[in-house]
Amino acid sequence: MLKRYLLAPGPTPVPSEVLLSMSKPIIHHRSADFLPVLDSAKKGLQWLFQTKNDVLILCATGTGGMVGSVNNFFNKGDKVIVINGGKFGERWIKICLSYGLEVDEVIVEWGYSIKPEIIEKKLKENPDIKGVFIQACETSTGVYHDVEAVGKIIKGYDDTIFIVDAISALVAHDLKTDEWGIDIMVGGSQKGFMLPPGLAFVSVSEKAWRKNETSKLQRFYFNFKKERENLAKNQTNFTSPVTLIIGLNEAIGMLQKEGLANIFLRHKKLAHATREAVKAIGLNIYSKESPSDSVTAIESPSGIDGQMIYKTLRERYGITAAGGQDKAKGKIFRLAHLGYSDIFDIITGIAALEMVLKSLGYPVEFGKGVARVQELLM
Amino acid sequence: MLKRYLLAPGPTPVPSEVLLSMSKPIIHHRSADFLPVLDSAKKGLQWLFQTKNDVLILCATGTGGMVGSVNNFFNKGDKVIVINGGKFGERWIKICLSYGLEVDEVIVEWGYSIKPEIIEKKLKENPDIKGVFIQACETSTGVYHDVEAVGKIIKGYDDTIFIVDAISALVAHDLKTDEWGIDIMVGGSQKGFMLPPGLAFVSVSEKAWRKNETSKLQRFYFNFKKERENLAKNQTNFTSPVTLIIGLNEAIGMLQKEGLANIFLRHKKLAHATREAVKAIGLNIYSKESPSDSVTAIESPSGIDGQMIYKTLRERYGITAAGGQDKAKGKIFRLAHLGYSDIFDIITGIAALEMVLKSLGYPVEFGKGVARVQELLM
Repeated sequence: MLKRYLLAPGPTPVPSEVLLSMSKPIIHHRSADFLPVLDSAKKGLQWLFQTKNDVLILCATGTGGMVGSVNNFFNKGDKVIVINGGKFGERWIKICLSYGLEVDEVIVEWGYSIKPEIIEKKLKENPDIKGVFIQACETSTGVYHDVEAVGKIIKGYDDTIFIVDAISALVAHDLKTDEWGIDIMVGGSQKGFMLPPGLAFVSVSEKAWRKNETSKLQRFYFNFKKERENLAKNQTNFTSPVTLIIGLNEAIGMLQKEGLANIFLRHKKLAHATREAVKAIGLNIYSKESPSDSVTAIESPSGIDGQMIYKTLRERYGITAAGGQDKAKGKIFRLAHLGYSDIFDIITGIAALEMVLKSLGYPVEFGKGVARVQELLM
Repeated sequence: MLKRYLLAPGPTPVPSEVLLSMSKPIIHHRSADFLPVLDSAKKGLQWLFQTKNDVLILCATGTGGMVGSVNNFFNKGDKVIVINGGKFGERWIKICLSYGLEVDEVIVEWGYSIKPEIIEKKLKENPDIKGVFIQACETSTGVYHDVEAVGKIIKGYDDTIFIVDAISALVAHDLKTDEWGIDIMVGGSQKGFMLPPGLAFVSVSEKAWRKNETSKLQRFYFNFKKERENLAKNQTNFTSPVTLIIGLNEAIGMLQKEGLANIFLRHKKLAHATREAVKAIGLNIYSKESPSDSVTAIESPSGIDGQMIYKTLRERYGITAAGGQDKAKGKIFRLAHLGYSDIFDIITGIAALEMVLKSLGYPVEFGKGVARVQELLM
């Protein structure tokens, strides 16, 4: 018998309450039944996104939200900055290039975070930059970028919008969309929202909507203007994924009971305890700067393949964590603490890690990492 | 946010697979749909009970099965032995007395197990004893009684039947019904079977059925002869709890995949690790002899109320364990490892216990109990 535990940075565990809400009979998305459902969801998302902006709900993965954040606001040849500190920074570049944008890539070494002054300098030197793309949390490296600082710089440029992939950061991190001048922020249901995959969320500021008016890039499925018009009528442009939106309302209800401050504090504490436990075991955190509160990237000890740690956790202990991606593959593994996560998820992950490391020949004193979690989270 | 963990000796956690199977549309118990369902359930129960006997399925709690085990096989004034080593031994006495049986009570000190030779001596001296009642696992004290030894003694007496309350022992303990001469054995769905409460199971030997023929005690709901006749037709006497029986088949399917030997070994290992972890923390096991593989009864340290440990586990950490009952109330608390339980359930329980004890002023070195579990179960 192997019980299954999900400690990956998405999909994350879905609470029974949410699963049950999604087992209700399917309603029709153009019927009166659906209007209050979407109305509630859009207000709940504004609360979570800390914004007065529209938050569009798309039937897509987070990447779909990223695509729409490019092809609704730019034109061919537009100069944009992409902050590339990992796998998902690369994704911004690929999407921008596929639409013919001219990308000024700011490479950030994997495991490090952006120096906001680089962006400040670039914008001063190139006032024709139309947009700056970033990850709030770069999932592949476990690094949180200082979105606040970058956002406040971009605020000063009327023709430059700030686009944040917050797919793995939302709910875990306190992201003040309006206050920090985040023009477009993308989320995905299967992360902090405690939902199955299938929904992307995108908040859009008035500054971004103005750019939408002149954007002529090809778009049909991700047509944000049409989504906005529909949203005003509590509808979506195409068939609404009614089940997931009903689940979203249930999840937001649970989060609202907890309260924003408590949610962020919980994630901060779980992340801190995870890092401290990992260090107590003698391992290093891969994120050398600004480790995120969503996922912890951990260097595998020398001589041990990070993929073996991932594999052994999964096969021997039923725990699905995450390995490394691309150039970090084999060198790291990742433990998430995102969404429906509590102290015993961390203890489970750390206890299993201790056992896996020992079985792979790394000297571990059992209980040492767990004890650190207990001390910090008791 | 408080996630909930169920570490009580029943109800126990129900796997998603079983919950989902119970969400299928309700079928009619007198329709052809139901016949293969009950057929499969009765064969599955015979496999789990290790018996060729009929295993009746009752819509009742385990106590209902206990009542039926008295009023179907005895007559007013019949002399019976009841082994009373805890709360559930007392329950046998209460039921027997309520039907006018003459009870010879064998008191076993709480926390200790029966000496089989006492039963041997009593039967030799009183050949008119019609039945011997026992618990396989006395849930209130966490003690496993040597059912095998007692059963083999009773086998030698043609007019004496052996009735075992195995409600909290079944699935966790290897109980060889036929080989050991267990004439009547009672189970309950919400224990090792990984089901919600609602079903009692009772196996009945031919030796017991012969006594049924002469038993004249009042019975209407728990009429085992009628249940047996119905069972032969893949029916139950009254409305069958179809949902629970569908869930039972699903659970038995999961258990069959694991295999009897692995199931018993898993429970033995989890129980052993729990006891060793508790000792590593410096606490004493309440069961001085023959601790069960279903539930571990633990003495609370001097000066700390066992109920406070139970209460703090539940309120601060979302863990429902169990307190003490009757005269053990306040002195002990109990952690179960029964049914859908694995290493991380034990680690969760022990880690939480360490934190609760520390918060109540007991000196604990964090991770010490957890480390013991890791060493033993890695």
